[in-house]
Amino acid sequence: MPSYTAPTKDLQFVLHDVLKVTESKTPGYDELEPDFTAAILDEAGKLTSEVLAPLNAVGDKEGCRLENGVVYTPKGFKEAFEKVKEGGWPGLDMPEQYGGQNMPYVIGTAVGEMFSAANQAFTMYQGLTHGAASAILAHGTDAQKDTYLPKMVSCEWTGTMNLTEPHCGTDLGLMRTKAVPQDDGSYKISGQKIFISSGEHDMADNIIHLVLAKIEGGPEGIKGVSLFIVPKFMVKEDGSLGERNGVSVGSIEEKMGIHGNSTCVMNYDGATGYLLGTEHKGMRAMFTMMNEARVGVGMQGLAQAEVAYQNAVIYANDRLQGRAVTGAVAPEKAADPLIVHPDIRRSLMDQKSFVEAARAFILWGATMIDAAHRADDKDADGLVSLLTPVIKGFLTDQGYDMTVKAQQVYGGHGYIEEWGMSQFTRDARIAQIYEGANGVQALDLVGRKLAQDGGKHVMAFFDLVKGFIKDNAGQDAEFDAAFLDPLKAASKDLQSAGMYFMQNGMKNPNNALAGSNDFMHMFGHVCLGLMWAKMGLAAKEALKTGSGDATFYETKLATGRYYMARQLPATALHLTRIQSGADTVMALEAANF
Amino acid sequence: MPSYTAPTKDLQFVLHDVLKVTESKTPGYDELEPDFTAAILDEAGKLTSEVLAPLNAVGDKEGCRLENGVVYTPKGFKEAFEKVKEGGWPGLDMPEQYGGQNMPYVIGTAVGEMFSAANQAFTMYQGLTHGAASAILAHGTDAQKDTYLPKMVSCEWTGTMNLTEPHCGTDLGLMRTKAVPQDDGSYKISGQKIFISSGEHDMADNIIHLVLAKIEGGPEGIKGVSLFIVPKFMVKEDGSLGERNGVSVGSIEEKMGIHGNSTCVMNYDGATGYLLGTEHKGMRAMFTMMNEARVGVGMQGLAQAEVAYQNAVIYANDRLQGRAVTGAVAPEKAADPLIVHPDIRRSLMDQKSFVEAARAFILWGATMIDAAHRADDKDADGLVSLLTPVIKGFLTDQGYDMTVKAQQVYGGHGYIEEWGMSQFTRDARIAQIYEGANGVQALDLVGRKLAQDGGKHVMAFFDLVKGFIKDNAGQDAEFDAAFLDPLKAASKDLQSAGMYFMQNGMKNPNNALAGSNDFMHMFGHVCLGLMWAKMGLAAKEALKTGSGDATFYETKLATGRYYMARQLPATALHLTRIQSGADTVMALEAANF
Repeated sequence: MPSYTAPTKDLQFVLHDVLKVTESKTPGYDELEPDFTAAILDEAGKLTSEVLAPLNAVGDKEGCRLENGVVYTPKGFKEAFEKVKEGGWPGLDMPEQYGGQNMPYVIGTAVGEMFSAANQAFTMYQGLTHGAASAILAHGTDAQKDTYLPKMVSCEWTGTMNLTEPHCGTDLGLMRTKAVPQDDGSYKISGQKIFISSGEHDMADNIIHLVLAKIEGGPEGIKGVSLFIVPKFMVKEDGSLGERNGVSVGSIEEKMGIHGNSTCVMNYDGATGYLLGTEHKGMRAMFTMMNEARVGVGMQGLAQAEVAYQNAVIYANDRLQGRAVTGAVAPEKAADPLIVHPDIRRSLMDQKSFVEAARAFILWGATMIDAAHRADDKDADGLVSLLTPVIKGFLTDQGYDMTVKAQQVYGGHGYIEEWGMSQFTRDARIAQIYEGANGVQALDLVGRKLAQDGGKHVMAFFDLVKGFIKDNAGQDAEFDAAFLDPLKAASKDLQSAGMYFMQNGMKNPNNALAGSNDFMHMFGHVCLGLMWAKMGLAAKEALKTGSGDATFYETKLATGRYYMARQLPATALHLTRIQSGADTVMALEAANF
Repeated sequence: MPSYTAPTKDLQFVLHDVLKVTESKTPGYDELEPDFTAAILDEAGKLTSEVLAPLNAVGDKEGCRLENGVVYTPKGFKEAFEKVKEGGWPGLDMPEQYGGQNMPYVIGTAVGEMFSAANQAFTMYQGLTHGAASAILAHGTDAQKDTYLPKMVSCEWTGTMNLTEPHCGTDLGLMRTKAVPQDDGSYKISGQKIFISSGEHDMADNIIHLVLAKIEGGPEGIKGVSLFIVPKFMVKEDGSLGERNGVSVGSIEEKMGIHGNSTCVMNYDGATGYLLGTEHKGMRAMFTMMNEARVGVGMQGLAQAEVAYQNAVIYANDRLQGRAVTGAVAPEKAADPLIVHPDIRRSLMDQKSFVEAARAFILWGATMIDAAHRADDKDADGLVSLLTPVIKGFLTDQGYDMTVKAQQVYGGHGYIEEWGMSQFTRDARIAQIYEGANGVQALDLVGRKLAQDGGKHVMAFFDLVKGFIKDNAGQDAEFDAAFLDPLKAASKDLQSAGMYFMQNGMKNPNNALAGSNDFMHMFGHVCLGLMWAKMGLAAKEALKTGSGDATFYETKLATGRYYMARQLPATALHLTRIQSGADTVMALEAANF
């Protein structure tokens, strides 16, 4: 069975050596001293590796069971969920007013990586709750907040988000679920929602569904969509639970992975719902959840890659097979361990250089979200909004590929469920699909985010990269050649792609959209390249001061050199594809595929 | 549930317009008139789409069941296997002497694609039998051939190959299974083998296991490995079945996919075995099976990509979601079909341009195998031997990626098992692993095949590409720019990579091996680029003569242009990686991963 060790040291490196969080002006960051964050991360590391990780395979094998309208989660999930609640983990970055600990989002994100890596299906129960609570926090009335948030922040009650219907996912304007206004100000919600993660289960006293529906007589299409709070059990004035609401689970889906999470068909039969936010502005309210969820899903891509990588390393060191081509490394044994072979190393380095940079990327994004929320930093808000589809799309595409590479290290054993590597790929696969399939992320990036606020944010990104290179070049020729020059070249490729879109997308928008997936990927590579340059610099500085673990910092530099030499040059290929335009992409009649 | 339609028209195009099989001097090819091959392909198409494809999901869901030493295949498999046998399909390209139809291997390959696409797990029962029969044909005594081949060619008896043991797969020198010589010339075989596809099942009267084992007292390591025939039931002098041999199934593995095939742990407890071929030369005999199996596995990569692509196209045309950015295509409907969106087309074109070129590549490879076997053509033998790891490694890596892309077109439904797209990816995944994991293919290519016969075969490949370009350039500027120039550039990249290996692999072989995976992939791209140039030329010629389906040929040219513009340029990235050498790959101590 696979194991999981929380990457506490690396998280600390990113928080303190790279992002230097305590030097930030964002309110609350001054408290994030290394000892303090280490204590939190250690505690989370223990819980995730000792309690959640061992349940990962159990959840996969057993799955969820629907019997007479009740969904039973896998054996051990309920007890583990109690431990998570006792530790106060679900409310880590939630307001104290509602029982949370008011920590910055960046800490929630660091801890969140561990939770997702240890057990993605399990962690989704609290993840969805967090998202739903955030939406209520942002758009709810005081009464709604007082009614739902204390229970949701503690995960006594869990939450869901209900968007998809059988005939529509991305295109929510086609939605059929109806909301009929009642005299008391509530609504009766009727319709069917599918793919509802954590839709029904046995781990919470109540489930608060956030449901998109159309108020009868409202505007057509997406402009007539509103968001509603629909509790599973009605909540009485005194906060106690009343009768069952008209919402029930129709079935649970049989999926490729994340078996431990109950993915439900939910039926709303005149269920009582309460408007959350403004009438017909449901998409705006839902996007509060969606943006948070998208960063969270990007993190799942990283998290599955991390745990799969850890196990691939263990196997590559254990399994004896063949001899190093340059001479036996373990002559006393019948064969050398797999890790001596260059192609195994190539695979492991791909994985290692991805997860470490992805971790820095996500945490950097989280600091911008904190700056936006806690310090009303509009620039940070704009930049992270630009980068959100990259975080979601690129990290989950790459994260999935990395789990496949980790599985491949196991040879035949990778295909056998008992070894657990298959689960990582099957679980990671969903992250490319939900919260907006990655094609939609690419569309969001190229079709909307690039031009947002007159292209201000993408210009800011380029300035940031340029400024970083300028500030740090010319001091160390090896570092310039290994890190800064490749970053400069990749960033130039990305700019050229943006230029191509501007020059050719006007006359034919397909010229931009046909390159959207490539653009998202090249943007991701430039971001990870920037992270490696920053991490390389931090490692160099640490080595200069002579404090800390020199091997750790040397390894960091070596891993960075690998990424810059072997992965970052992918931007050139993406640029070539983009510059080939839409003609070959759009050439065929639909009937001729 | 997914459907499958055999790509008969495209197979005919490759056989006749591109490969022009009837013009070949290979014995038996003169009979392959278009009407004749069409009749075979139509018949196979009917069987595979109507009988085998509907059982694909059944096999996945039900899997195989072991009860009291008996393995039960999924419902319907047995009846379908009878139909396959009745049609004489297993012996299509086997000698008439043993009940086969003596067709060229290229026809077996064309039909084989259909079988694998329709139902990979099912087709493996006959595929392994074919491989085992080929090994007996090549290395058996006349008595062995007479005893086993007639029954195996008809699939009355099936076959297996037993290589892997719990502690060794690739490194078979570590093998522990023992063979003890008996007075009557037979051997007693003892040991455990794992991952034995079709190891035990209920669809055949007897199972002929080909088992690698070490004869006691023989040389150490791989040089002491011999191959044995171990029948499940002893075969009497008169050909009737005798008592049960000392071989039994220990368990069946729970796998990520190909659930319909029984992957068994096989226990040999003093089982009676008969030497096949020469003592201690077992690997040579086994490679007869392995090489055939590797081409067959490459075909599985193509086949799963094909069936997944077909279903992605259907879904993309059916599913209404969003509007074309250039204006509604189906204004009368609530939304446009998915296929209007450039990023969906990008994905479908990736798939289409891969499968069609992969098909041509495999069939071209098959004609070389025929030339080698039927006309003793040493050059063809050398070239196909060089290309075998590319066929296996590149086509299964790419094939897998394509099934993932096809699944992605389905959005959330792609993750739900009911829709069947998950099965294509789960089934396709094994092809990257078995018959030598793809890292081993890359090692075989770079570490062995490149230098084989003094590098003669890779030089022949480059000459072939160069000759093709020279013969066809300068007649049509558009064709040159769209097809020949990119092919030239890609081929140059491949040559540069080979040059890098020569110049840097001598002083440090890791410089070659660290680039082996990239080399295999760039070689694959050049092969598919060559195929597209050949197909483009054939399509142009057909359009010039004005015969046949002009839309088909126009589509072929458009698809080729896509591949040349968007996929073939990947060679430059692979070259960059290769030229970065082994230093960054090998930099870390094993303990620092």
